Amino acid sequence: MSTPPHTLKPNTDRLAEDLKALSQIVDTTKAGWTRRSFTEWYDRGRDWLKQRMAEAGLEVRVDAASNLIGTRQGADPTLPTIMIGSHTDTVNGGGRFDGIIGVLAGIEIVRMLNESGAQLRHTLDIVDFTAEEPSEFGISTVGSRGMVGNLSAEMLERTDPAGRTLREAISALGGSPDELDRNIRTAAELALYLELHIEQGPVLEQTGKTLGVVTGIVGIHRYRVSIAGQPNHAGTTPMNMRFDALAGFCEIGQAFERLCREKYLTDVVGTIGRIRNDPNASNVIPGLVEFDMEIRSLDMNLCQAIYDAFERESHRIAEDRELTVSFEPLSKSEAIEVPRGIRRLLMDVCPDVAPTMELPSGAGHDANQLASIAPIGMLFVPSKGGISHNPEEWTDLAQVAAGVEALARAMVVYDESAGSINSY
Amino acid sequence: MSTPPHTLKPNTDRLAEDLKALSQIVDTTKAGWTRRSFTEWYDRGRDWLKQRMAEAGLEVRVDAASNLIGTRQGADPTLPTIMIGSHTDTVNGGGRFDGIIGVLAGIEIVRMLNESGAQLRHTLDIVDFTAEEPSEFGISTVGSRGMVGNLSAEMLERTDPAGRTLREAISALGGSPDELDRNIRTAAELALYLELHIEQGPVLEQTGKTLGVVTGIVGIHRYRVSIAGQPNHAGTTPMNMRFDALAGFCEIGQAFERLCREKYLTDVVGTIGRIRNDPNASNVIPGLVEFDMEIRSLDMNLCQAIYDAFERESHRIAEDRELTVSFEPLSKSEAIEVPRGIRRLLMDVCPDVAPTMELPSGAGHDANQLASIAPIGMLFVPSKGGISHNPEEWTDLAQVAAGVEALARAMVVYDESAGSINSY
Repeated sequence: MSTPPHTLKPNTDRLAEDLKALSQIVDTTKAGWTRRSFTEWYDRGRDWLKQRMAEAGLEVRVDAASNLIGTRQGADPTLPTIMIGSHTDTVNGGGRFDGIIGVLAGIEIVRMLNESGAQLRHTLDIVDFTAEEPSEFGISTVGSRGMVGNLSAEMLERTDPAGRTLREAISALGGSPDELDRNIRTAAELALYLELHIEQGPVLEQTGKTLGVVTGIVGIHRYRVSIAGQPNHAGTTPMNMRFDALAGFCEIGQAFERLCREKYLTDVVGTIGRIRNDPNASNVIPGLVEFDMEIRSLDMNLCQAIYDAFERESHRIAEDRELTVSFEPLSKSEAIEVPRGIRRLLMDVCPDVAPTMELPSGAGHDANQLASIAPIGMLFVPSKGGISHNPEEWTDLAQVAAGVEALARAMVVYDESAGSINSY
Repeated sequence: MSTPPHTLKPNTDRLAEDLKALSQIVDTTKAGWTRRSFTEWYDRGRDWLKQRMAEAGLEVRVDAASNLIGTRQGADPTLPTIMIGSHTDTVNGGGRFDGIIGVLAGIEIVRMLNESGAQLRHTLDIVDFTAEEPSEFGISTVGSRGMVGNLSAEMLERTDPAGRTLREAISALGGSPDELDRNIRTAAELALYLELHIEQGPVLEQTGKTLGVVTGIVGIHRYRVSIAGQPNHAGTTPMNMRFDALAGFCEIGQAFERLCREKYLTDVVGTIGRIRNDPNASNVIPGLVEFDMEIRSLDMNLCQAIYDAFERESHRIAEDRELTVSFEPLSKSEAIEVPRGIRRLLMDVCPDVAPTMELPSGAGHDANQLASIAPIGMLFVPSKGGISHNPEEWTDLAQVAAGVEALARAMVVYDESAGSINSY
């Protein structure tokens, strides 16, 4: 194309109108800005998106996994597709930005290209992926899983609380579950996947940066841990004759926090988010504590090393207290790498738009799925107060616009130079 | 009387039959040995008790608070009454000994007196107190409260889950709630209250003693504590930007245990038995933890001192972590003293029957209520493994028999010498 990338500017008023319009298509019987996947509000949001896509001149379709896709044909039909996407479903009581800005960014970029008269070499797909958040079927990233072949037959038969299968829900949204296998996108078809997303954490805000180039998406080790002691009368059992599972938990929980807080070369976070105490009565010494712990890092060896140290330390503490502790793996997801070339491309382009830093993504995204078939790039904009999955979720319009502009520039640079940076 | 106390021996076969018979009058749809107050099984247990009392020659009646009382008249009608009592209701999934042995002991002692031809100077009341355990109305020691005037009009109007008032339940059991005020027992009427009970703790067993002379019943300070942090995404929030309420709880909980484990001149126990974590999801940093803590001791100043130190330490920990912590008092009960003379009487008599030690009662009993109008004495027998409020609750028959014999001897010595040990 002939348009220099730096002349591509989003229309912030239009972006603001889009954000406002979509934020009004929500379930008003629920707290915050709730548009759960596979609900009537989700359908209405999709209808609104289809209109915006069509107005932007995109060819609109719903794929087998019920993802909404708007396509802008490229000049060279032999080149694979560039894809920009995210999601418009929310958690219960969610916000107005998580996922949503990534889809709106794609549509706005198409309008910017149209207005500048740009003709890309690559075909461009703008995607609203179905059900990125944990759905009522207990599965997240439903649409991106389906697109890359990670939505199993077993998953399709899972039911929501109303008894509907995921298969039925995908069909109702215009998907074709029976055609999933025949419609898996392959590495050969996809040149690059780009996603703009809110950070959902405090790092950009606290370091005063507007743009975050994602270095990778952390892997997660998750375990369920049980500490067994002996329930006993809180009045009649002297301190030195107790086998108090909750007191043991306190010591074990402190050890976990200490291990995760030690300084490592790679960032790591560890969380105990869920605890169940039994019998949980104020006058009974707790006999059993069960808790979920997770460790996240880009460095899976580090996750493992921290887990190993934690398991050893837990057994030592339990032994001292004559408690027993046991570990059950819940899930293990591998870290996703953003190719070095894509990081370099984004780090070249972004600082011209706004102050930029590199950081890992501590959350999973549709990009996790796409990474199995294409190089991915992700760009973060700040979350005020680090708050997400909450009605208070906020990103300033100027920050969203900077993200859209930087993503557009990177995409255009890639489109022109793909041949020379094919090592991505 | 002319019978030397040491000739009074319980009939262990008869005691075993009684224990077995009452253990069969339970709600078999529930775990363990469940005979909840104000149920049909409780009624049937009462019918069985009335027959045993009548067979032992007692005058049987149900008082205004629905306590079952069997009376053996004394030789000197000017003397106040000696009372022996406990309860036959159980917790859900309870055992065969808690409370029950205290009532059966009273009946067996009457038979022993009858068989030895003894005539006591004091009138003797054997009491099965109504609903000692926390009832479905949220109130415990219902009958003993009623007897001493601690059952308020407000309590009588409380309802169980079926909507029945406590007033109605007491009436159904043969009580006269409207007559409660006119039937309060006074200090002038009662010479002494004695209760035999299982320890419900591990101390007697672990020290190899059969009999425990209770030095007092501990007072309890109970608080609800809230730790407020900030709920956040477990993946996107770096370790140094977290305000994790559950991690704060771990440190605060450890501080509490340490304070209660320090060596004091008086025994003290402290327990965190109940915890609520919010939002309690494995991928969300906990934003709020609420827990109940209690401190028990015979020394209320020590309870207060430990609480004060804990509150200070909690605020320091919370400040370091930028959390906020707040304390709400739930309840405060004062310690009950066993008069020095009664302890001396029991310590004189018991070692001739079986190995004896002094120890505090960490649990509350009907004796707590009776202490407001009469000198009380309590005797413990061992709980195997310290287990109570559990189907596995166990005390060997020989230990129960030793308790019955010791209580009988102490009562007879008191009856004879009351004039000279009136300082009790």
